[in-house]
Amino acid sequence: MKIPIEESAFSRNDRTADELRAKFARHGVAVVNLMSSPGSGKTSLLERTTGALGGELRMAAIEGDPQTDRDAQRLNAAGLRAVQIVTVGGCHLDSEQVADALGEFDLDQLDLLFIENVGNLLCPAAFDLGETADVIVFSTTEGHDKPGKYPEMFVLADLVVVNKMDLAEAADFDEAAFEADVRRINGDVPIVKVSCKTGDGVDGWADWLRELVRTTKDGA
Amino acid sequence: MKIPIEESAFSRNDRTADELRAKFARHGVAVVNLMSSPGSGKTSLLERTTGALGGELRMAAIEGDPQTDRDAQRLNAAGLRAVQIVTVGGCHLDSEQVADALGEFDLDQLDLLFIENVGNLLCPAAFDLGETADVIVFSTTEGHDKPGKYPEMFVLADLVVVNKMDLAEAADFDEAAFEADVRRINGDVPIVKVSCKTGDGVDGWADWLRELVRTTKDGA
Repeated sequence: MKIPIEESAFSRNDRTADELRAKFARHGVAVVNLMSSPGSGKTSLLERTTGALGGELRMAAIEGDPQTDRDAQRLNAAGLRAVQIVTVGGCHLDSEQVADALGEFDLDQLDLLFIENVGNLLCPAAFDLGETADVIVFSTTEGHDKPGKYPEMFVLADLVVVNKMDLAEAADFDEAAFEADVRRINGDVPIVKVSCKTGDGVDGWADWLRELVRTTKDGA
Repeated sequence: MKIPIEESAFSRNDRTADELRAKFARHGVAVVNLMSSPGSGKTSLLERTTGALGGELRMAAIEGDPQTDRDAQRLNAAGLRAVQIVTVGGCHLDSEQVADALGEFDLDQLDLLFIENVGNLLCPAAFDLGETADVIVFSTTEGHDKPGKYPEMFVLADLVVVNKMDLAEAADFDEAAFEADVRRINGDVPIVKVSCKTGDGVDGWADWLRELVRTTKDGA
């Protein structure tokens, strides 16, 4: 019997992720794993989310980046408590990094925890973090042909947020072609269209989060 | 003595890359490893390159994508001979994949070979493909804060192409902040600004390629 090294690393990740999932459930915290290419707007979406839900839900964020704490600084400035994980070039977060970062939070004081993954449309899909939901943030400027080319993450998604709708026309983004490509990969996954620049559509995202928090509390 | 599996895989990749480098030099072919996030415009840049240099240089492309041969189809339609490598979810190309794809080409009939890597601003930087030059394609819509956050690829670059200059203003792209960030990481790396949509700036990219082909032939 031959067990590749990779499988063993994945197994260790999955075991810790299962422990995290049980912990999140015990505390009734909804956890969203936000994944995207670099610059799709994950941090901007969290800034908007703070404006939309900050008075209503108790939220925090774990930020993953290869280098710098720029994103945690932005979110803390926006009023969202954020802790930075620097992966030192690493191309995804893993469950042990998340478990370590959790020491910074009192889960009983949270309704909703965001994990903003490293900007990468590929590797983060392979690492379970114990999250309640997987959300892809995709921006119109990345092109409508990407779901079919990068299906591994789209097949996982519980929600697809399409950001930069304000640039859709200038970027020649074909909404119908994009949606058809998504539908081929992940049948009826909800798609929410937003512009983090203008705020358009953020209410749809906020509604989806409220529902996630509600069902998580009901299940706890 | 303990040799991690990863190190061994990198060693194998590097050995094959060295063989490729010697082969490319023997045939006097300049090879450009094009790297970027998904949707930054690598394929669009190659379409423009075909228009700018197709009558002057003998060119071809190896296309890397997690799934589909959409990019090779686009380039073949544009008149650039292209072969597709599907990595089946793999997050970068490696030198053995490139060596396999080379069977499709007669290197004596080429001046310039592009290797369009998988769309990923992280992992491709770790894999030598025997290339003559490393080029990052970065788009204004990804945000001026990215070099500092994703420095591993910027430190390698022989050229940074900034694409989607037509969207720079709408995307609030701060050119000075971007360039200062790049300069901190990779001192005097040349930066060429283009719009693959309008064609603006493509002549600067074409000049850089002509010079690369010239110095490669001189060294052969």
